[in-house]
Amino acid sequence: MSNQTKRFFLSEEEIPHYWYNIQADMKNKPMPPLNPATKQPLSPEDLFPIFAQELSRQELNQTDSWIEIPDEVRDMYKYYRSTPLVRAYGLERALGTPAHIYFKNESVSPVGSHKLNSALAQAYYCKREGITNITTETGAGQWGAALAYAAKVFGLEAAVYQVKISYEQKPYRRSIMQTFGAQVTASPSMSTRAGKDILTVHPNYQGSLGTAISEAIELAINTPNCRYTLGSVLSHVALHQTIIGLEAEKQMAMTGEYPDVIIACFGGGSNFGGIAFPFMRHTLLDGKKTRYVAAEPASCPKLTRGKFMYDFGDEAGYTPLLPMFTLGHNFAPANIHAGGLRYHGAGVIVSQLLKDGYMEATDIQQLESFEAGCLFAQAEGIIPAPESCHAIAATINEANKCKETGEEKVILFNLSGHGLIDMTSYDKFLAGDLVNYQLSDEEIARNLSEAE
Amino acid sequence: MSNQTKRFFLSEEEIPHYWYNIQADMKNKPMPPLNPATKQPLSPEDLFPIFAQELSRQELNQTDSWIEIPDEVRDMYKYYRSTPLVRAYGLERALGTPAHIYFKNESVSPVGSHKLNSALAQAYYCKREGITNITTETGAGQWGAALAYAAKVFGLEAAVYQVKISYEQKPYRRSIMQTFGAQVTASPSMSTRAGKDILTVHPNYQGSLGTAISEAIELAINTPNCRYTLGSVLSHVALHQTIIGLEAEKQMAMTGEYPDVIIACFGGGSNFGGIAFPFMRHTLLDGKKTRYVAAEPASCPKLTRGKFMYDFGDEAGYTPLLPMFTLGHNFAPANIHAGGLRYHGAGVIVSQLLKDGYMEATDIQQLESFEAGCLFAQAEGIIPAPESCHAIAATINEANKCKETGEEKVILFNLSGHGLIDMTSYDKFLAGDLVNYQLSDEEIARNLSEAE
Repeated sequence: MSNQTKRFFLSEEEIPHYWYNIQADMKNKPMPPLNPATKQPLSPEDLFPIFAQELSRQELNQTDSWIEIPDEVRDMYKYYRSTPLVRAYGLERALGTPAHIYFKNESVSPVGSHKLNSALAQAYYCKREGITNITTETGAGQWGAALAYAAKVFGLEAAVYQVKISYEQKPYRRSIMQTFGAQVTASPSMSTRAGKDILTVHPNYQGSLGTAISEAIELAINTPNCRYTLGSVLSHVALHQTIIGLEAEKQMAMTGEYPDVIIACFGGGSNFGGIAFPFMRHTLLDGKKTRYVAAEPASCPKLTRGKFMYDFGDEAGYTPLLPMFTLGHNFAPANIHAGGLRYHGAGVIVSQLLKDGYMEATDIQQLESFEAGCLFAQAEGIIPAPESCHAIAATINEANKCKETGEEKVILFNLSGHGLIDMTSYDKFLAGDLVNYQLSDEEIARNLSEAE
Repeated sequence: MSNQTKRFFLSEEEIPHYWYNIQADMKNKPMPPLNPATKQPLSPEDLFPIFAQELSRQELNQTDSWIEIPDEVRDMYKYYRSTPLVRAYGLERALGTPAHIYFKNESVSPVGSHKLNSALAQAYYCKREGITNITTETGAGQWGAALAYAAKVFGLEAAVYQVKISYEQKPYRRSIMQTFGAQVTASPSMSTRAGKDILTVHPNYQGSLGTAISEAIELAINTPNCRYTLGSVLSHVALHQTIIGLEAEKQMAMTGEYPDVIIACFGGGSNFGGIAFPFMRHTLLDGKKTRYVAAEPASCPKLTRGKFMYDFGDEAGYTPLLPMFTLGHNFAPANIHAGGLRYHGAGVIVSQLLKDGYMEATDIQQLESFEAGCLFAQAEGIIPAPESCHAIAATINEANKCKETGEEKVILFNLSGHGLIDMTSYDKFLAGDLVNYQLSDEEIARNLSEAE
């Protein structure tokens, strides 16, 4: 293997100049978001009070396949992109599989995950429109860290509401955001009406993403020149993440192979869409036979066991109604360590694609995900984020099938981030303190009927 | 700046095939290590019980300028090398300096620092010589993490003695080592005579690098097929680290510039030697005028305020006597957060070069180092290791001088590692809880006279 290339890079000129907007090429477009009061479809203008105008337009753009990446954003991409496409020889050896395994290594971003790809874009558009302050929520803090740095790059002030239990239990990511100059507030807080309403009733409430979203939106709406930003679920976030798959497509060409299966972990869909959509356009337009597999946690199985329906994007019900695979907006996922995958719904694009049979989903138990992560760490030297461990587990399952059948399938997965800030989770896994979570059909059905 | 290249990479073929052994080109060679009992110079054979034979020979090799990198090691380098050479446009802008600042980004290694460059080499040679187990000590854990992964790569068992206070206070790095499959023991421990001797007298002793070294060496000597490994100070470690400077030399050529000043932080000298020695050969052989600046912590100033003399490499006095700049092997450095720089002495090559005026040293206070680190993080998006912050602070000082004089100097520094595992240190800095340490001339003199 000495003379074989392990990592494939693009030159700065080869970094894509356009993001790919898969909505334009879908036969069945995602259905529109609805105003929950009037049940009328929303226009971009309806979103302007919350999001930057250009992001609102991108969110609902179903006609342009290619959106130009602004020079200022592409210029910042050059600091860490192209990210390497890596042939996982070590993992192949460890598994004894005939499969050829590749991964796109988004963990090399300075903040350690793919989240920066969209954070830079969102901060840039806000800046261009004269916005001075941006807000967001974060759980474990991957997205918050990316947004904090992106805000600094474009000279914006960032206010991040971090779920209180993470704020206290994961001080590392809070410190990262603060080192980048962001204002970080534990949510619920006394700085918003939404926060006060909760704290006056439950003074010791540990917070949730839903509450943090409400606080961030409220601050954005009530502050001049301030807008809200989000790190996943939305279509414009997946759009920005297609830089991953567009690079991977060129890099796979350098290997002389083409993926039979493309795998990514799944929370709201941004890293999955990011790597899958550019390849999927060949399936949509030319009938190319490729499998696209979303790996979700068994404790939060909206794709494998949820229902396709209009539902709210947040727990409190402040967002528009979105057509999505969901477990119900009131679904309270178990406290698994892959915090980035603990979300009740799927983005509208992925939901439509799954409904139409263009992709598939698989669920992974927590223990299986960490076993896969440890195997990968020892084989490839990179400790993966707990979220990414789900993609690795699904990859291992595919590779083991190849071992049985003897097929030399080409598998590509997205390593969305590293786990160096998540070592307490590995610690607990190694100590035998983690468990799997079983979710009964009754629980799912009950929750969905409450949400409807 | 849109059309300017920010990061420079080498192809896999361009990754160097040889390490550079500066000892061969030095007019005044380092004086030999001495047996402390007989005061006789040591031969490689004297080191065989402790180190792999090839490493023992490399340690004392003063004749061969180039040592071939084994295919198996170079093959593993390809997984993360070449590391990028980055033009720090963001930092230049933040400082308003006319200087051109470049940094070699060793933080992209899977374990987050340059340490892996030597860990892979040491593990490989041990494997080749039939050794099955390797031991080492680690403080904060950068070296231990690198060695744990390298051992796994080459199928060796690794036993790491981690200073007890770090083992308890920095569980993240312990978990990283364990995830890579290493056996990690808090030192002092009951597993060695050295540990037992201390614990029976001081049951609550928090440990020191010196004690951990003693335990690791004792285990190596008393275990069949087991050898000891070290992450800095020694000449063969600096040899392996020259891969950094050899790559940087090729990458600087791609920029069309040549460094006027080369800067690295300084603990035992491995990352400094790694980036500086390949450039310094042009100074030694062709009289090229380049400044080489070692940035050490003001609380552990062996280069700026220590004495050149024969001294022990460890606190307990078990190692050979080494000709080094030292503060005395019994020197107890203040508990600064740049744990990797808390060492009383300098490697023998750097010591001789400093004595002969080929390089210079500067000392940096703790607060200045973290201020520099935060500025760099906000300007370049990478949170640097507390150790690397010293190199950044020295770089900023040089760049600010250029601002005064208007000189367009080219400055190259080594970013030895990222700080994502060190966020508690940043946390304390941001909270105003860190202090500077003043060291009086009397203290230094007293300590040196005790050591002599």
